[in-house]
This record gives sequence, structure tokens and C-alpha cells, in this order.
Amino acid sequence: MLKTPYLLFLGDAPDPLAAKVAQGIRDWRPEYALGQLRLAGCQADMKLPDMSVEQAVAQGAKTLVIGVANRGGVISEKWLEVLEQALAAGMDIASGLHNLLRDEPRLVAAAERHGRQLIDVRVPQVKYPIADGKPRAGKRCLAVGTDCSVGKMYTALALDSALKARDVKSSFRATGQTGILITGEGVPLDAVVADFMAGSIEWLTPANDEDHWDIIEGQGSLFHPSFSGVTLALIHGGQPDALILCHEPTRTHMRGLPEYALPSLEQLRETALTMARIVNPSCRVIGVSVNTAGLDEQEAERYLADLEARLELPCVDPFRQGADRLAGELSS
Amino acid sequence: MLKTPYLLFLGDAPDPLAAKVAQGIRDWRPEYALGQLRLAGCQADMKLPDMSVEQAVAQGAKTLVIGVANRGGVISEKWLEVLEQALAAGMDIASGLHNLLRDEPRLVAAAERHGRQLIDVRVPQVKYPIADGKPRAGKRCLAVGTDCSVGKMYTALALDSALKARDVKSSFRATGQTGILITGEGVPLDAVVADFMAGSIEWLTPANDEDHWDIIEGQGSLFHPSFSGVTLALIHGGQPDALILCHEPTRTHMRGLPEYALPSLEQLRETALTMARIVNPSCRVIGVSVNTAGLDEQEAERYLADLEARLELPCVDPFRQGADRLAGELSS
Repeated sequence: MLKTPYLLFLGDAPDPLAAKVAQGIRDWRPEYALGQLRLAGCQADMKLPDMSVEQAVAQGAKTLVIGVANRGGVISEKWLEVLEQALAAGMDIASGLHNLLRDEPRLVAAAERHGRQLIDVRVPQVKYPIADGKPRAGKRCLAVGTDCSVGKMYTALALDSALKARDVKSSFRATGQTGILITGEGVPLDAVVADFMAGSIEWLTPANDEDHWDIIEGQGSLFHPSFSGVTLALIHGGQPDALILCHEPTRTHMRGLPEYALPSLEQLRETALTMARIVNPSCRVIGVSVNTAGLDEQEAERYLADLEARLELPCVDPFRQGADRLAGELSS
Repeated sequence: MLKTPYLLFLGDAPDPLAAKVAQGIRDWRPEYALGQLRLAGCQADMKLPDMSVEQAVAQGAKTLVIGVANRGGVISEKWLEVLEQALAAGMDIASGLHNLLRDEPRLVAAAERHGRQLIDVRVPQVKYPIADGKPRAGKRCLAVGTDCSVGKMYTALALDSALKARDVKSSFRATGQTGILITGEGVPLDAVVADFMAGSIEWLTPANDEDHWDIIEGQGSLFHPSFSGVTLALIHGGQPDALILCHEPTRTHMRGLPEYALPSLEQLRETALTMARIVNPSCRVIGVSVNTAGLDEQEAERYLADLEARLELPCVDPFRQGADRLAGELSS
């Protein structure tokens, strides 16, 4: 879907967190990340060569990826100038911003003039089918969370890497705009029309070799009232053989919903398995991925050890420890 | 949303079943149904006065409602002529067809020329919010099914009528195109973008008097892999105080999915309550609605009696018996 390699546009990022898309590409697909372009005042740095648009094109860059969020919701004059230059120099532009590239007349005109593509990865590019629920060859693993934003994408990317390191056939399947920008393809599930949600996931994870794993990025949570329907469509479209439970232990309530407490991991296990076994009776939970960024090293180790004793499942923080133990559960 | 009263357009319906939208309006909102317009060969009859477009307008009809399905997926020349006449005579046109009125250049031109509206109820007309999950005043009841198309809309409409007959404040809340055409408003949930599904249901069922019931039309089934995400969004957006389980006892597999058996009513009760209690801990199942059209009178009575003993819940067929027993559970 996206042509590689990329020039990562960091704009005038107010802090490193704003550039999490660029960071994701840098971490997970470094071979795509040719260089970075930063404007005055940029507070993010991917430790990549700084490049102008012209330098990047000269070195082979095919797509400028907007690697930074613009919270204000407006594509600024300063950005537009650089983006027009990129189109003129021969690059496509890819973006996961809420405000779409295609809604900027200057960019639309420049893209047409120079024969380049504007790729808004939030907008579905495909007419997805309605799900038919039929079993298909190959194996699938899905990350499900006690809440939104607890590390499901990170977990899936880390697991995909760990499987590849073991020479197990594996594909990361992106279901959100960050994942799509990182890997260059996927389904922007939260923007798909209701009737086609599960079908879009069947489309994303088609029949494959019997020993191939699709590692599917999770979205939302069965326990998050705003987005639970998206999560269930993902479970029923993905027909997972394996689930990984994802959790952030310092979260005090569901993201954005002060009225809602998080479920326990036991509740998540029970509910997610019940729903998954409707489409795949042999589905099992193979481990727990904990984002322990809010704990110090010792607290994290104790938390994971206690949890492992309690749940009798491998419990890891893939950021601190990698995902090889989870990969072992899939490849054994 | 739709102006009443209606002229019901039955077209050249090949059989009575094809006119189920018209039948629904005739059954549930007879005060909206001024007359019917039938073309040569029409095999459906609502036992309403046959009217031409001009006669209907003279008697006050405001909207021509397409009350019949066109399986071929094309709006035929014969239809277009009548629909153009209706616009010229001063009526709006409302439709739940897959092929949209707005995609017919002749109708678009005629509507513009005569200052009339083309209302495709399958297309969301509103920018829905993301659900915030906040509790709100008033009571809500939702119909959930073991499968799609087991009588959830009929059950909700019958319950709404039965509550009104008891002088209980009640509103039927439509979530599909047939329900929207019958009652003139609602949310076409299966066409809403994933992120906004639950929010559209919060919008549809806002805070109300403490003794008011929203009776929410169900969609899909938690156990139907193609549409389960829609169902869960409905449960989490609707925050139901009460659930009614809907079932069709002669169904041999999930609709359209020969690989999938139906869940038991016990499984549905357990799963739907678990999911509903995430947003409304006091939610309870108040009864079962069975579509016994496939059973004779005696079989139906025996089935309902056995089921009632098994589940210890009121079990009724609202088509045969009305929904007063269910209404009694809500108003007691």
C-alpha cells in the first residue's frame, strides 16, 4: 500500500511523544526509515540522518510519512510548504491525521500536478466483504486488552519479531493508523462501516500456510463501552487460535471514562475466550503482556512474578524483556 | 425525520413478503398510512385505499414511502416514472433500498426542480458522537437474539404498544431501516462508522423521565460472527436496564452461516447479561420472546410452557399473544 523507503516528517513536534508514529517506524521497520525532516523547534529526534526533501529523494525516498500528531487539528502553513515540496520532488505523502490530506486543496492540486498520491490511512481504501465466518487455513493470534492503549500494538509487533527470530512464519496485521503507517498496509478498523467490520478482518487475515501465524493488532477492549463493538468484530473476524491478554497495572479507570473501573485479567480471560470460542472452539489464552512503564525495575519483576503465579500463564513485559516467551508458546 | 402521513408504494411486489416495510407501517403506525399505490402485477395488498399520487397529495400525504424490496437491485423505469410524479406533486420520497435514491440522476433532478427531499434511511444523516458511557436518566430495554432475524423488531414494537396501552411512557427506538421507515426516525446502525456505533445509540436514547422506557430495536446477535460487533455496540451504547431474549425455535443454523449452530437461550442470557452489566450492573433479563410462526398452535403452547419452566422467565410469542406480559415485567 505505501511505497518504501520513507522520509519521516517530524514537523515541529512539541515533545517526543507527539512523534510516536515516527518512533514506531524507527523501532519496528528501521529498514523503511531513510531519514527524518524536522522543522524549527522540533522536540523529537529519531536519531536518523536529518534530510531535506531533495536529499531524501536523491537517496531514494518514495513516501514522506507524517510521523507526528498535530493536536490542533489544522495542517499549518509551515507544514503545507514542506509537503508541497515533497510532492513536487516526487514523493507520495502518507498520513494518519484526523484532518485529511485530501481535504487540503493545495495538496490535492500539487499531487495532481506532479502525479503523486496522497494516502490518508484513516480512510478505508477497500470495499470490504461481509464476514462469512468460514474457517480458513493458517494460525492467528490476537492481542486483547483490559482497556484501550495498554500496549496491544507493541505486543503484536514484538511477538511478530520474536517469531521471525525463531524462523517461524509470521505476519503482523495492522488494524489502526499507526500500525498501517509502520508496516505499510492494513485495515483502519475504527473507520470501517459497522456491517463490514468483521469482514474487513477476514480480508486482512486470509487463508495461509498451516504453520503461518497472523499476529493481529488489537483495538479497544470488550470492556470499553465506546469501542467494545470494534473489539468483538476483531475477535469474530480474526477467528483467533491464540489470545494474548494486555494490561497496564497503574491505570485507575478505563481510558477517558472516569466512571468505569478496569476488569481483572481473569474477567478478560473468561469473557474474551467465551466470545472467541464462538468462532474458534480451540482458541486458548497463551500469555499476558504487561506494560510496566509505570513501575520501577524491581516492582515490575515482582508484579510479573505474582501475576504469573496467580494466572498460571507466562506474564511478560515485551518492552523490558522481549516477546520470546510468548513466541515460544505459539511455536511449541 | 420523515413527514407524515405516508403514501405506501408497493410497486410490482412479487409476493406479500416483499412488502414487509409497508406491512410494518400498516401494523404499527396505521395512523401514518393514508393509502397504497400499486403497479400492474402487484401481489401485495395492505387493505388500504388504492390511490394515485395526485389523490394521495389531495388527501394530505407528505411522503411516498417505498414499502417494497427490489431484489434485483435496480430501480426500474416503471418505478422511476411514479417516483418522479410524486416529487412533482409535492411529496418527499423515503427509501430503505440498498440502491440509493440519491444515486438516481432523474430523481435527484426532479427533487431539486420541485424542492422535495429524497431520504435514504440507510445512510446516516447525523454526525454521531463517540460514546462517553455516562449513566443517564430514564429506563431502557433492549431485544437481543440467539440469531439475526428472529423477531427483535417485532418484539420491540409490540412491547412499546403494550406499554402505551398500560399508560406507561415508552418510545420505540429504531436501529434499522425498516424500523426507521415505520416510525419515521432512528439510527441506521449497520451503516454507522465503527468508532461511532455506541455513540449513535447513546444519541438515540438520551436522558429522559425516570419512568420513561426506551424500547430499543436489536440488531444482529452476539453469536453471529458477521454482525456481533454491531450487537455489542448496541448493548454498550444502550446501557439497558432490561433485556428480552428473542429466539426462533426451528432455525437449524445461524442465518447465512451453515457452519454455526445457534446458542442456547441460557448461553445468550449468560453472555448478554455479562456484557450488559459492564455498563449497567443492575441489568436483568425480564423475559423471552419466541417467534413460533414455524409451529402450530398446540406445538407453540407446549414449547412456550416448557421453556418457561426451564428458564423461569415469562416466555411469550408477541405475535400470537401480544406483549402485555413482558410490559408487566417492566411496569411492575
